[in-house]
Amino acid sequence: MLPKTIQDLIEEFSKLPGIGPKTANRLVFYLLSQTDSELRTFGEAVSLLKKNLYFCQKCFNFAESEICTICADSKRDQTKIAVVEDPLDIVALEKTGFAGVYHVLGGVINPIEGISPDDLRVKELLERLEKENLKELILALNPSLEGEATAMYLNREIDKMKEKSPELKKNLKVTRIARGLPVGGELEYADEITLGKALEGRKEF
Amino acid sequence: MLPKTIQDLIEEFSKLPGIGPKTANRLVFYLLSQTDSELRTFGEAVSLLKKNLYFCQKCFNFAESEICTICADSKRDQTKIAVVEDPLDIVALEKTGFAGVYHVLGGVINPIEGISPDDLRVKELLERLEKENLKELILALNPSLEGEATAMYLNREIDKMKEKSPELKKNLKVTRIARGLPVGGELEYADEITLGKALEGRKEF
Repeated sequence: MLPKTIQDLIEEFSKLPGIGPKTANRLVFYLLSQTDSELRTFGEAVSLLKKNLYFCQKCFNFAESEICTICADSKRDQTKIAVVEDPLDIVALEKTGFAGVYHVLGGVINPIEGISPDDLRVKELLERLEKENLKELILALNPSLEGEATAMYLNREIDKMKEKSPELKKNLKVTRIARGLPVGGELEYADEITLGKALEGRKEF
Repeated sequence: MLPKTIQDLIEEFSKLPGIGPKTANRLVFYLLSQTDSELRTFGEAVSLLKKNLYFCQKCFNFAESEICTICADSKRDQTKIAVVEDPLDIVALEKTGFAGVYHVLGGVINPIEGISPDDLRVKELLERLEKENLKELILALNPSLEGEATAMYLNREIDKMKEKSPELKKNLKVTRIARGLPVGGELEYADEITLGKALEGRKEF
């Protein structure tokens, strides 16, 4: 009923997460009001998305060369690494003004989905602990069951390393981001686990 | 901070209606998990969207040739025209199983935005009334203030034509889609205007 080019693009948009057929329709009909040159710019941005795109050999963030701009930035504190699940978490942390560097695990341990530490960049992280002279490793994983389990696993592995290396034990602090009430949230609507963690993590006023 | 190709595509997605920067981020990071060939397919679907795309010379729906598949379909009732604002409304009406044909106005009269009948396909609609032997014109415009005003304007223009042509007066019925409570809606939550229209449009049981 609709011309094939329109149907094709609606189908492509429908494949995106969170985009249902109605939204896909709306987006495509919006694009129909754009000029040919605007469509070409958008289309090429999609086609060329992964062109000249690499994984940073240090932190495994997306990069335009072997090392990403964050790892290459000498003004950043290279002794503080925030361990995150994926590059999108870096975007979020960058907005807070965090001035250290990152390590992208590429997911979390999830036995149900068959994701073991070997599927993640755990080995690469432990290698960085050996080679780089780090002061702090911030476990900034999602506060999900799997995120917690992965944080615990990593902490255990690092403890094993610390036992072998007194220097690492002396210098490296392992921390994790606080769980608690979100700013603007209301105590009465918080779930009991979050509220429990908020109470546990209380600080002197 | 992010590679330029990623930033470029996030920017392109952010231009789409209803897509904020967070959603754009999420969509682009999803696309990063796709293969190069999948990206090329999507990219080309965007770039080529308006290639070989025409406006149907009869109803002004999108078409792949001079006449759209709906107008060219001899199995459809070509004596019943539903007048709609834009092609997306055709997609919605097609799902109801409507078996007539369409006429896309290209908008509604809107003095505030400077859209007058001359900016719409009103002249083309009136020409169709003259040339085609129609039985019914269904005004399927949105139940907005502008949609209602446009429906009233069109009805007035058609009345003028009917005064001049007794044949048209005898044959052509002008109707409009019903306003009322949406199916599944609740009376107590309906606004007073909708409820008023629903009452007005009541039918014998």
